Amino acid sequence: MDSQIMHKAEVLIEALPYIQRFNRKIIVVKYGGSAMVDGQLKKNVVKDVVLLKLVGFKPIIVHGGGKEISSWVKKVGMEPQFVNGFRVTDEPTMEIAEMVLNRVNKNLVQMVQELGVKAVGISGKDGGLLNVEKKLPDGQDIGYVGNVKHVSPKLLYDLLEKDFLPIVCPIGYDDSFRTYNINADDAACAIAKAVNAEKLAFLTDVEGVYRDFEDKSTLISELTLNEAERFVAQGMAGGGMIPKLQSCVDALKQGVSRVHILDGRIPHCLLLEIFTNKGIGTAILNSEEERYFYEG
Amino acid sequence: MDSQIMHKAEVLIEALPYIQRFNRKIIVVKYGGSAMVDGQLKKNVVKDVVLLKLVGFKPIIVHGGGKEISSWVKKVGMEPQFVNGFRVTDEPTMEIAEMVLNRVNKNLVQMVQELGVKAVGISGKDGGLLNVEKKLPDGQDIGYVGNVKHVSPKLLYDLLEKDFLPIVCPIGYDDSFRTYNINADDAACAIAKAVNAEKLAFLTDVEGVYRDFEDKSTLISELTLNEAERFVAQGMAGGGMIPKLQSCVDALKQGVSRVHILDGRIPHCLLLEIFTNKGIGTAILNSEEERYFYEG
Amino acid sequence: MDSQIMHKAEVLIEALPYIQRFNRKIIVVKYGGSAMVDGQLKKNVVKDVVLLKLVGFKPIIVHGGGKEISSWVKKVGMEPQFVNGFRVTDEPTMEIAEMVLNRVNKNLVQMVQELGVKAVGISGKDGGLLNVEKKLPDGQDIGYVGNVKHVSPKLLYDLLEKDFLPIVCPIGYDDSFRTYNINADDAACAIAKAVNAEKLAFLTDVEGVYRDFEDKSTLISELTLNEAERFVAQGMAGGGMIPKLQSCVDALKQGVSRVHILDGRIPHCLLLEIFTNKGIGTAILNSEEERYFYEG
Amino acid sequence: MDSQIMHKAEVLIEALPYIQRFNRKIIVVKYGGSAMVDGQLKKNVVKDVVLLKLVGFKPIIVHGGGKEISSWVKKVGMEPQFVNGFRVTDEPTMEIAEMVLNRVNKNLVQMVQELGVKAVGISGKDGGLLNVEKKLPDGQDIGYVGNVKHVSPKLLYDLLEKDFLPIVCPIGYDDSFRTYNINADDAACAIAKAVNAEKLAFLTDVEGVYRDFEDKSTLISELTLNEAERFVAQGMAGGGMIPKLQSCVDALKQGVSRVHILDGRIPHCLLLEIFTNKGIGTAILNSEEERYFYEG
Amino acid sequence: MDSQIMHKAEVLIEALPYIQRFNRKIIVVKYGGSAMVDGQLKKNVVKDVVLLKLVGFKPIIVHGGGKEISSWVKKVGMEPQFVNGFRVTDEPTMEIAEMVLNRVNKNLVQMVQELGVKAVGISGKDGGLLNVEKKLPDGQDIGYVGNVKHVSPKLLYDLLEKDFLPIVCPIGYDDSFRTYNINADDAACAIAKAVNAEKLAFLTDVEGVYRDFEDKSTLISELTLNEAERFVAQGMAGGGMIPKLQSCVDALKQGVSRVHILDGRIPHCLLLEIFTNKGIGTAILNSEEERYFYEG
Amino acid sequence: MDSQIMHKAEVLIEALPYIQRFNRKIIVVKYGGSAMVDGQLKKNVVKDVVLLKLVGFKPIIVHGGGKEISSWVKKVGMEPQFVNGFRVTDEPTMEIAEMVLNRVNKNLVQMVQELGVKAVGISGKDGGLLNVEKKLPDGQDIGYVGNVKHVSPKLLYDLLEKDFLPIVCPIGYDDSFRTYNINADDAACAIAKAVNAEKLAFLTDVEGVYRDFEDKSTLISELTLNEAERFVAQGMAGGGMIPKLQSCVDALKQGVSRVHILDGRIPHCLLLEIFTNKGIGTAILNSEEERYFYEG
Repeated sequence: MDSQIMHKAEVLIEALPYIQRFNRKIIVVKYGGSAMVDGQLKKNVVKDVVLLKLVGFKPIIVHGGGKEISSWVKKVGMEPQFVNGFRVTDEPTMEIAEMVLNRVNKNLVQMVQELGVKAVGISGKDGGLLNVEKKLPDGQDIGYVGNVKHVSPKLLYDLLEKDFLPIVCPIGYDDSFRTYNINADDAACAIAKAVNAEKLAFLTDVEGVYRDFEDKSTLISELTLNEAERFVAQGMAGGGMIPKLQSCVDALKQGVSRVHILDGRIPHCLLLEIFTNKGIGTAILNSEEERYFYEG
Repeated sequence: MDSQIMHKAEVLIEALPYIQRFNRKIIVVKYGGSAMVDGQLKKNVVKDVVLLKLVGFKPIIVHGGGKEISSWVKKVGMEPQFVNGFRVTDEPTMEIAEMVLNRVNKNLVQMVQELGVKAVGISGKDGGLLNVEKKLPDGQDIGYVGNVKHVSPKLLYDLLEKDFLPIVCPIGYDDSFRTYNINADDAACAIAKAVNAEKLAFLTDVEGVYRDFEDKSTLISELTLNEAERFVAQGMAGGGMIPKLQSCVDALKQGVSRVHILDGRIPHCLLLEIFTNKGIGTAILNSEEERYFYEG
Repeated sequence: MDSQIMHKAEVLIEALPYIQRFNRKIIVVKYGGSAMVDGQLKKNVVKDVVLLKLVGFKPIIVHGGGKEISSWVKKVGMEPQFVNGFRVTDEPTMEIAEMVLNRVNKNLVQMVQELGVKAVGISGKDGGLLNVEKKLPDGQDIGYVGNVKHVSPKLLYDLLEKDFLPIVCPIGYDDSFRTYNINADDAACAIAKAVNAEKLAFLTDVEGVYRDFEDKSTLISELTLNEAERFVAQGMAGGGMIPKLQSCVDALKQGVSRVHILDGRIPHCLLLEIFTNKGIGTAILNSEEERYFYEG
Repeated sequence: MDSQIMHKAEVLIEALPYIQRFNRKIIVVKYGGSAMVDGQLKKNVVKDVVLLKLVGFKPIIVHGGGKEISSWVKKVGMEPQFVNGFRVTDEPTMEIAEMVLNRVNKNLVQMVQELGVKAVGISGKDGGLLNVEKKLPDGQDIGYVGNVKHVSPKLLYDLLEKDFLPIVCPIGYDDSFRTYNINADDAACAIAKAVNAEKLAFLTDVEGVYRDFEDKSTLISELTLNEAERFVAQGMAGGGMIPKLQSCVDALKQGVSRVHILDGRIPHCLLLEIFTNKGIGTAILNSEEERYFYEG
Repeated sequence: MDSQIMHKAEVLIEALPYIQRFNRKIIVVKYGGSAMVDGQLKKNVVKDVVLLKLVGFKPIIVHGGGKEISSWVKKVGMEPQFVNGFRVTDEPTMEIAEMVLNRVNKNLVQMVQELGVKAVGISGKDGGLLNVEKKLPDGQDIGYVGNVKHVSPKLLYDLLEKDFLPIVCPIGYDDSFRTYNINADDAACAIAKAVNAEKLAFLTDVEGVYRDFEDKSTLISELTLNEAERFVAQGMAGGGMIPKLQSCVDALKQGVSRVHILDGRIPHCLLLEIFTNKGIGTAILNSEEERYFYEG
Repeated sequence: MDSQIMHKAEVLIEALPYIQRFNRKIIVVKYGGSAMVDGQLKKNVVKDVVLLKLVGFKPIIVHGGGKEISSWVKKVGMEPQFVNGFRVTDEPTMEIAEMVLNRVNKNLVQMVQELGVKAVGISGKDGGLLNVEKKLPDGQDIGYVGNVKHVSPKLLYDLLEKDFLPIVCPIGYDDSFRTYNINADDAACAIAKAVNAEKLAFLTDVEGVYRDFEDKSTLISELTLNEAERFVAQGMAGGGMIPKLQSCVDALKQGVSRVHILDGRIPHCLLLEIFTNKGIGTAILNSEEERYFYEG
């Protein structure tokens, strides 16, 4: 028996306690950034989620699609505009965003189905999943950009019960049934809270959270909720990371057990985070106790 | 008690035997044509289907969206092309078609939800619903236009069981997981057969089938399967109607009990056909016996 | 399309929000008075209830039968006697009452079955539904006339779950297993409370409640619980109406959402009350808010 | 330990194999004759059936009530008439029969409930249980006397599933929804066949079947189906017994495993037949093999 | 009908209220002492429990096997040792104990199966049923003798739901997954508490509890919880009985309704206790009220 | 990201199609030979089976224990005897065998539970799982050694449904309820057939089947059913292997899809066989087609 094959067995056996710990638990994966653009990374992410499904987890994918939206906005002769990092979304832009995001959504469905797992692509409109209200960053009206006001998770539970992998595109309607685009991070966070997810993982384009974001050697592998709150309060961790950390803090406070910020540029980052005892990226946890459990 | 209110009671009571007959039966509605363009007609169709759902039927909507596709094809500077009435669908066209149809789909979901009924919009990709193969009309390759090869109705049954109204957009993939557009009539027909629908109703832009399609006074209200087959064989009933009649014949032969060709331009045509003893449009039935039942 | 048929569609569509509001809700109908004597009215009531069942409501009928009891009492040479409006019920009278009411009960079952809906006729003895104690109006012993002491609704829930329409005749036994007759209004009220009915409708021989019961122009279409209590306290609304109003007040206080006093002499009064936005008769509601909802 | 108590244990242990054999099996008991008239016998029968229910059997009672009907017919000044042993049943007689039988029915329900077991009394009208057609003995029209044409056992199965003891009174309607009286033996037999009863027991006023019905010493304790058919063909066994034997033969041929003709005048005859290895009355079995099983 | 057979019916009828009272209730039987050694007594106990199962109770057997263990310990040349009545259990002894008890267990399974009832033999290891910790009587280490620390009753509930009779042998493991022997009384008591048993019956080698254990005429048939506690506190009732009484007190305090100390040397003592109104042995009850219920 | 961790992800991803293929399929593992003796190998086997359970398979373990039986037989001063490779099993030997095998059984339960998976240890007596008849090799009576005559798999299905891992020890009883020892290979084979296992894997002490069993270089990795039958008929493949091959042939003919002969001396052989595309040991398949599927 050659040593290479033996090694395979060991890797599988090493995964055993992790499979056990998350068996039948819901894991929300926010899928975005480079991992959505690069073809090979995309395939890897889909394979990872399919594996999670097959070994007994209950993953839910929430995806973005900003780059494709911008590209189509330009294709019809318009110019994408942003305020404070939010896309200004007038009616024609909203129309394009809905078309593009739903196509991205069905494309992911197709990739999952191709690997033999049943998937259903839904938007926040289906079954009234995401009820929104207009977002007014610093009081400014930037059009059809919404905050999640309420989540009706019945459809997600029904699909999970029937053994489908739900893939969610972040569009919803408000109380007057007007369509809104939602930031995918926000949508993932709201859904994770509504279904009491065991884990919420963000695929990002950074390695994780840095203690000093100028110095890449200060990557933090675990933060407690308290520490994360201090980071947000003090504006540490770099501009783009602040709202994401705020989302993590919110999610943890409302019942999600553990939030991860992963580097989506690393192939199979999701699998590695879950199935190996080192983990990668930054984990934010509810308490000190939890940390010891993981280290033990 | 004024007579107007009394009349209301009578109308409701008149509907009783029809509600009874179709209670918990599946009805597939092919939604297309003018009824998708005119705002008021659209609202009426959605109201009709919602009513069917609420009184105990199990409706499934299958919709098209040809006009919107053409409009978007032009918007990005391309020119829609047709061969034998089929849209030539190269890759960029297919991409636009998928975006547009999915947006139409979610728009219908939203309208149904607004009336208080839970809906889920899916494409033929979700749960592997529609498996297709390339269509080659007269041997010609017209790109990503597919015939339905196989239907996997599990997702539809699951959604119906969980009390959702499924709304299907006619896009699927082939055995190599390439995306195809499907004629909505074909998709509706294939789905109706796969779920053993009690009824399949086409909303069209004609009054129904004419014995002599030059003479509008020859509208036929009921055709048997045999008569319909003779019409197809003899090329009667007008060009556009032949493939539709062929679909009806196929559906009836594979277990659908009754097919209707309705004039979608008439407000609430669906409701009127089902709940009144006159019916409108043309019904195609399996046998003479069936006809007498309806007349009795 | 002639306007008469179009009108039918409109009536059906108008019913939509009401069907929605009461979908799968329990509605207890106290059936009595003229509507039980006149053959045509009887058929109408049965048709109304059958329609409610078919469109998704869960109706329960509770019926009386006083006139038929009196007629049979006379047939065997006895004389019906009343004290304060209650029938003096000695053993022979009780025997006749039980025979007559059960036959009325099965006759209603038969009429419902004839319309294609499954019904089961039960008395308060079946499954121990109605546990009673002797009624002593003003301290007087009038024989086997009982008050409902306890309701065991399991059988009703079981029949509803199995999709039957339960029809209840108001006879029960006391803790010593002696048979008692129960006032049908009381029985309906007790059952409505025990199953948390959404609605309790009394079919009576009056138009409703009058502000001044000498003046028929003062018919009240809606009363709040508070107003109804004041009416009872002040003895307003006419003699026969006081105990019925008291029943309504009790029912509302114990969880029934809305009580109706309908004029059973109007054909389809039940349907009209439920499916039209005017309503007929008098509704007693829990609060001001509820009223606005209905009017809105 | 005194020997009397020890004896009790032995009796219980002796019952063990019989409890085992009939566990969760349906047993239809035709209840009639003296056992319905004598107060003490009545209590015994009810206790027996309740015990069967409690130890895991699924009993269904079908009862008659001929004597009470005749008594009430006379009470209103009419004269009971019979043709060939069948009551001539005009409309007034039918009305009385329905009243009387339903009261008998609810009285039995009450007795069962008093012993702590849940019972529901139904007639053949409830849930459309018994569909009948006019009986024409020797071509004679004797009014509303019916043969069972079809049994819809759903309600019986639903009640058994919900752990109720069903008690059936033998009245049904024909295809035109006219009410008919049914011979209780016929009704019991039809129901036993429809539910594939393991056992059908007739409580009668004779000891059983005699080989020579003039000679009481010739009581037969077991008959095969073949022998029973010969008895019927040859008119042996005494006049009143022939139609009952014919019923037994029919029941056995259509799936009932074993039919018993018991002497209802013996206290607890039902219990003794089922729980002791001697048996009482006459058993009619499907085959020789079955006999050996019982004897072994 | 001879009087002997009639008597049988009476005995069965007498059992009726007891069957009713314990229908679907869990009864834990601690089986040990002489009743495990004498072949005929053994058969009687198994028959009794099988009868309880068949008439609707849910019995669970917990058994010992001390004598057989000692006999095997000697067979391999070792000498059984006891401290304070507890077996000193070194590793070789534990190994033998586990072998012997599991064989006793499967032998009981076989006897139950032979009577036609499905049984499953489990130890406290299966499904993690019994979690233990080392017992240190008076601080002494006597080896692998454990106290029950925690019961995980899921497997018991699953087996009962699937209609099996569970038979438990009192072996479990501690938090370090080391095997321990458990006193069968303790195990029965812990299990009865964990499943909220209606009744816990100990089969012993004494007649019951004596008020003065020197004087056999002072057998007590019923003790309240308070009285039992006083007996324990004052060391009354004889040496061997004190720990058993303590167990009874614990069980009653944690939800078991009634505990019995029966004389296992009396044939069918279990059946007699449950099905006759005298009872045998000593019952310990929660309160005075309970006593009157039983006497009434 | 270091390459070692990346490699882990790849191994997990490689397992994906195998997890998919066997998801919710039953796999019977015959556990015996060296893998039961060596402590480390034992732990590996248990870990492998636990992993299979956790990723969605439904494993059933059937184990032997011959060496431990012999050791205990000697311990009590007897001498193990064999005829044609079968243990001569008189009553004292049978008693020891039952004790030893049940202890081995509970020891396995404990090891599985320690890894966090719920297990239940049963013998062929529990729930009447294995019904046997005396084995008479070449007509010789060798005592209590049985062949499996009938399998009642209900208990196995119940335990799998409730999510337990069943561990079976090969002891059963015959129609007279006498205890028999069963060859573990035979028991595994009979169980695999009775539950329609997808796979049956034998852990043995050889590398697999050799074309020429003198020449270790002729190990066969796949055999068709036909080839295996020829091997048996021609007595090829070495003495000890013939009966095992015969078992494989029987199992395949009765619905098991694939049988494996694995070398239990290789750590994690089970995992490697299932999760890698090389496989180890010898697989026997139903047809040529099956082989191509695996190779493709």
